[in-house]
Amino acid sequence: MSARLSTLPILSADDALVALRDAHPLVQCITNAVVTNFTANALLAVGAAPAMCDLPGEAGVFASVANGVLINLGTPTAEQREAAREAAAGGAPWVLDPVAVGVLPVRTALARELLDAGPAIIRGNASEIRALAGDGAGGRGVDSVDGPEAARDAARTLARTTGAVVAVSGERDLITDGLRDVRVTGGSALLTRVTGGGCSLGATMAAFLGVTDPFSAAIAASALHAAASEIAASVSSGPGSFATAFIDALASVDPSALVAAGRVTDDVREGAQQ
Amino acid sequence: MSARLSTLPILSADDALVALRDAHPLVQCITNAVVTNFTANALLAVGAAPAMCDLPGEAGVFASVANGVLINLGTPTAEQREAAREAAAGGAPWVLDPVAVGVLPVRTALARELLDAGPAIIRGNASEIRALAGDGAGGRGVDSVDGPEAARDAARTLARTTGAVVAVSGERDLITDGLRDVRVTGGSALLTRVTGGGCSLGATMAAFLGVTDPFSAAIAASALHAAASEIAASVSSGPGSFATAFIDALASVDPSALVAAGRVTDDVREGAQQ
Amino acid sequence: MSARLSTLPILSADDALVALRDAHPLVQCITNAVVTNFTANALLAVGAAPAMCDLPGEAGVFASVANGVLINLGTPTAEQREAAREAAAGGAPWVLDPVAVGVLPVRTALARELLDAGPAIIRGNASEIRALAGDGAGGRGVDSVDGPEAARDAARTLARTTGAVVAVSGERDLITDGLRDVRVTGGSALLTRVTGGGCSLGATMAAFLGVTDPFSAAIAASALHAAASEIAASVSSGPGSFATAFIDALASVDPSALVAAGRVTDDVREGAQQ
Repeated sequence: MSARLSTLPILSADDALVALRDAHPLVQCITNAVVTNFTANALLAVGAAPAMCDLPGEAGVFASVANGVLINLGTPTAEQREAAREAAAGGAPWVLDPVAVGVLPVRTALARELLDAGPAIIRGNASEIRALAGDGAGGRGVDSVDGPEAARDAARTLARTTGAVVAVSGERDLITDGLRDVRVTGGSALLTRVTGGGCSLGATMAAFLGVTDPFSAAIAASALHAAASEIAASVSSGPGSFATAFIDALASVDPSALVAAGRVTDDVREGAQQ
Repeated sequence: MSARLSTLPILSADDALVALRDAHPLVQCITNAVVTNFTANALLAVGAAPAMCDLPGEAGVFASVANGVLINLGTPTAEQREAAREAAAGGAPWVLDPVAVGVLPVRTALARELLDAGPAIIRGNASEIRALAGDGAGGRGVDSVDGPEAARDAARTLARTTGAVVAVSGERDLITDGLRDVRVTGGSALLTRVTGGGCSLGATMAAFLGVTDPFSAAIAASALHAAASEIAASVSSGPGSFATAFIDALASVDPSALVAAGRVTDDVREGAQQ
Repeated sequence: MSARLSTLPILSADDALVALRDAHPLVQCITNAVVTNFTANALLAVGAAPAMCDLPGEAGVFASVANGVLINLGTPTAEQREAAREAAAGGAPWVLDPVAVGVLPVRTALARELLDAGPAIIRGNASEIRALAGDGAGGRGVDSVDGPEAARDAARTLARTTGAVVAVSGERDLITDGLRDVRVTGGSALLTRVTGGGCSLGATMAAFLGVTDPFSAAIAASALHAAASEIAASVSSGPGSFATAFIDALASVDPSALVAAGRVTDDVREGAQQ
């Protein structure tokens, strides 16, 4: 794990958002062609400075100055695969988003290779996390057929073997470091009707890595997306207007909404029993 | 043509939309960098599950499980060209969108090669269809200088020689299998002021290939886009808000709007006379 | 510089917009993956016909018929770098947008090489222009740490040594040909919270190259974006809705808003003193 990480404080989700908006962390994204625009706008909205620097020969240079890095395997071209290796070794804390890993051979091989490079956070849906942990055959493309709880054991195992925080996204998000489990509740089903909901969540986690530790970062990002999607759903009339309102909400959501009653539940005891 | 296709029923446009929203077909897209996001959101809005899987070594694997595939030649990188060949041979019914074919040599050569791989549907504007049929020199980039009727003979010839349904998009869409011509009327000129209108139409056709035969699929997709763009135009104040409202409308349009009076006109006699 | 340019008239910003909407110039873009969609929609909104033709073997062919070309170095893949060289030699007047040049080696080398190919306009933020002129070490990714005036001397030098008009974007834009300085005032800070604001401005300059000389084109595009972003800010509630409203405003803004009092200030005397 990056030496830089060790100096960052543990923060509650609301305090982390305040810190993020104040720090404007530089976030490098190596991500898929479908969501680059939405992801960059989401990062700008939360207060980060995004840079989609994904070229061999540049990605490592940039990662050496970035505050957080996202490596998303949605459409990993040959150049992006090489850039991902450079960025993972660049020194900044980074998030691995193993999109559609399992059935598809190119990204699956790369994801396994990148695990050895020490991601700070691994974010995926239940199928992706299970496939990465060697449990199950993966989902139907980017869809997950199961909810996060079905991947709980796989997530814990993956966290323990890699040292990463593992975040399983779904109707109720599960975040674990292998011992401690936190759930984040809320959000809107409309976020699953827009491409980039999960991908931008990984990017937001990378942004929070610029201001807090990986466990706090994964929780704060999940709570922020849940709160912002609730606001967006309340003012939109379909997936198109929801996507627009979601970006607006990321920029304007009150930090207190991230720690609303029942939003973040910490289940240390249950995790420690295993 | 794919063996899977033979088992799918002929459906009217309204019934096809009901079936599509129920089936959530898995749609693989190899498409251009300009419209990936808009296309994925359009597919999610109509009820499909999009996957922009366009890597060599993965595209064929994915096509073997997809319910429909789009191969759009808007910005065909070397990796996408190889992936397109894999996907065309993957076994799923697929749509060819020969963007800007004619003047530009790389995509023109690939489009001709792909014709031999048996697309279920070929969708383009009049200039593209004429160029692909060897009639005319192609348009001005993605623009077409002529309307669909100017490409009627070329479309019929192309349908007869390839076995594909040919859909010529324009103010009034023309869909032909070489014998039978159907026109789809309606829509909004605002759809031509937004990038991805035509490209997302090809993707929607690929989605309908998951629930009905190619002729019905091309008609249903054209009718859906026409109806949704009318709704969107009625609530928008420019191309930006139109694009957002169009996605909303794709998700909410009542199936009956696809078969409103005068929307779909079937001209069997005229086609059979030739 | 392109022979075609010599026949184009000097136009005020309002007259240039009228001419642009009438001429529908064909604009080729070799640009980054983050902003292709937003850029194409911005070009369609201003009345241009965009084509993101960025393949080796096609880019030069297309540039020979385009009315203006944008070469943006945001995410220059190997294929795009080759295509950029082809397009720069294609004969159409072109805009160079040296995104994040300075620290990142691949794009920096390409930018310097392309300077010798004779861009009509160079557009960047202060850090990029200073880095390209050999003055300063570049910014923090796409961010600029300084305002345009800090790059005034570098911009003038770059203009004189390359023969290009240099446009430095910021809160108050600076446009210079090395002797004459023009400032364009206005706009909205929200444009900096949306990705593609600067990139689409470069594309709009390429569109204006189809109807007027480079100096007039750079001024008109800057004034158009300033005016449109003011309109958009007045009707939006965050960066998401601002982006949508900005596209609407590009399509509907009254030409007179481009020459509102104080918008464009011409400082010939100051420039000539140097």
